[in-house]
Amino acid sequence: MKKEIVIGIDIGGTNTDFAFVDKKGTCYLKNNIRTDKYPDIDTFLDELCLELKKGITALKKEFSTVSIGIGAPNGNFYTGNIQFAPNLKWKGCIPLVKMVEERMSLPVVLTNDANAAAYGEMIYGAAKGMKDFIVITLGTGLGSGIVINGEMVYGHDGFAGELGHTTVIPNGRACGCGKKGCLETYASASGIVRTMHEILNMRKEDSLLRKKDLNKLTSQEIYIAAKKGDMLALEAFEITGEYIGMKLADAVAFSSPEAIILFGGLAKAGNYILNPVKKYMEQNLLSIYKNKVKLVLSDINNENAAVLGAAALGWEYLNKK
Amino acid sequence: MKKEIVIGIDIGGTNTDFAFVDKKGTCYLKNNIRTDKYPDIDTFLDELCLELKKGITALKKEFSTVSIGIGAPNGNFYTGNIQFAPNLKWKGCIPLVKMVEERMSLPVVLTNDANAAAYGEMIYGAAKGMKDFIVITLGTGLGSGIVINGEMVYGHDGFAGELGHTTVIPNGRACGCGKKGCLETYASASGIVRTMHEILNMRKEDSLLRKKDLNKLTSQEIYIAAKKGDMLALEAFEITGEYIGMKLADAVAFSSPEAIILFGGLAKAGNYILNPVKKYMEQNLLSIYKNKVKLVLSDINNENAAVLGAAALGWEYLNKK
Repeated sequence: MKKEIVIGIDIGGTNTDFAFVDKKGTCYLKNNIRTDKYPDIDTFLDELCLELKKGITALKKEFSTVSIGIGAPNGNFYTGNIQFAPNLKWKGCIPLVKMVEERMSLPVVLTNDANAAAYGEMIYGAAKGMKDFIVITLGTGLGSGIVINGEMVYGHDGFAGELGHTTVIPNGRACGCGKKGCLETYASASGIVRTMHEILNMRKEDSLLRKKDLNKLTSQEIYIAAKKGDMLALEAFEITGEYIGMKLADAVAFSSPEAIILFGGLAKAGNYILNPVKKYMEQNLLSIYKNKVKLVLSDINNENAAVLGAAALGWEYLNKK
Repeated sequence: MKKEIVIGIDIGGTNTDFAFVDKKGTCYLKNNIRTDKYPDIDTFLDELCLELKKGITALKKEFSTVSIGIGAPNGNFYTGNIQFAPNLKWKGCIPLVKMVEERMSLPVVLTNDANAAAYGEMIYGAAKGMKDFIVITLGTGLGSGIVINGEMVYGHDGFAGELGHTTVIPNGRACGCGKKGCLETYASASGIVRTMHEILNMRKEDSLLRKKDLNKLTSQEIYIAAKKGDMLALEAFEITGEYIGMKLADAVAFSSPEAIILFGGLAKAGNYILNPVKKYMEQNLLSIYKNKVKLVLSDINNENAAVLGAAALGWEYLNKK
């Protein structure tokens, strides 16, 4: 009998990655197309689905493709639409699930990228077997996927889990969402760069980063400087960890999760980010929660993580039907 | 055939209220005993269960008593224990469910008072038919009961839903829990009194409250002054609403509920508290949530609310078995 396989698709602003993924998390025929080359969603999906059909044919001796899971910015699980995603060229409300189902004649399920990451951790990663956990994605922004009682939290409208837009500093930094002081303006790859700028302006101490073009400074460069013992870079991680830790303590008071998993670009800084987050989270926890919440880095192979998450959604969807 | 009835018990620091409650929420034989008269839990339960047995006998021609639901400070749904409740005389960990089951030979289920309030709203109140909502209890402290996907959120250890101990002002007011800046130090009957003290100290304007003994000032007196148009009392409600609204916006970003229900002593101030909470919640919401979350006052008869909540827990428990 042929083995079942699902397609995982991760739609990002620049690239769309996809792969065929089996139940163990092995990826086959991983590939990508440029998202930003297609201002028209129909042309994009025609091209993408052509590639997927080629893959189904190539694998059909061994595998039967059973569903498609998609992670995309502002992807709504309930409606199957991508709604007003600021980083995508397709404007307005895109009925993505319907459009892909029409082309592929397979069940299709959609969620946002942070929820897809949480499905990935639940099926393939650090949250295997857990019923209550939170995944925090630390990329250009800060996303979150929340699982409670073994179910993804979507809320009554499909939009739950926007911890990046909770307030950490009232009337603080301007956020892309139009609000001020949102967590993601402090705690993300771009947030730590803003913090580093502030530190370099405020302080007189020398730093490896003073030689850099500050307009092009990246979180990766701050990490490299921290690894070399640069005190101001280390301070940027400390401050970033303080903001994240404070808000994770709030999240624990909400849902008392077994674990919180840090995922994405900034999480690659390992203990440089994990240790301050842990310190300030514990400091801000009510005593009943102290030293109980596992705070860990995602251990999913980073290159495949987003596609694995989308595929995990595909599997989860079949299980629930 | 005899109709089914459950016993609802609300254990408070001073009084323990109880009643027999049918499926429609009608209360029979409502009564209470003094909690604080019994430093020993065994004597307390002997007395309480004697009263309950009298009730069962009195009602037995018409009703069959099928379960007991209990709301108590720090009551843990998972363990059935009351754990380290600061306002109760019984210290340490009390295996309440086991002790009541032994005496009554009925299924017994326990939760904390805020979760019991949320069960009450779900079965008898403003949240009937809803799957995603949050109840905020504004009493001496601030409690919260959170329902997601139709299930109470207990977290992995039974301690979820402590929104009163999320941080609203970093390094702010000292809280009874040992932390600083917790929401309940600003947003509760005692919190608004602290805010009123600050306003009276900071400002020179006249106020009806300047004649009061400030050491004994109550939230009720601030409400009465506000109703008479006292500007400083109105300002205390405005500020209290701002803190609550800000943190409710965070809660919406977490679980995107259909409704948030305000319950308890301070909620009796009606629009004096509801309007500022609504204004500042909406101001702090991400645009996708704006004008979607119903913010309402509990409409459960206040005198019976806590007992009804505990009884609702009893019914819910039978449904899930």
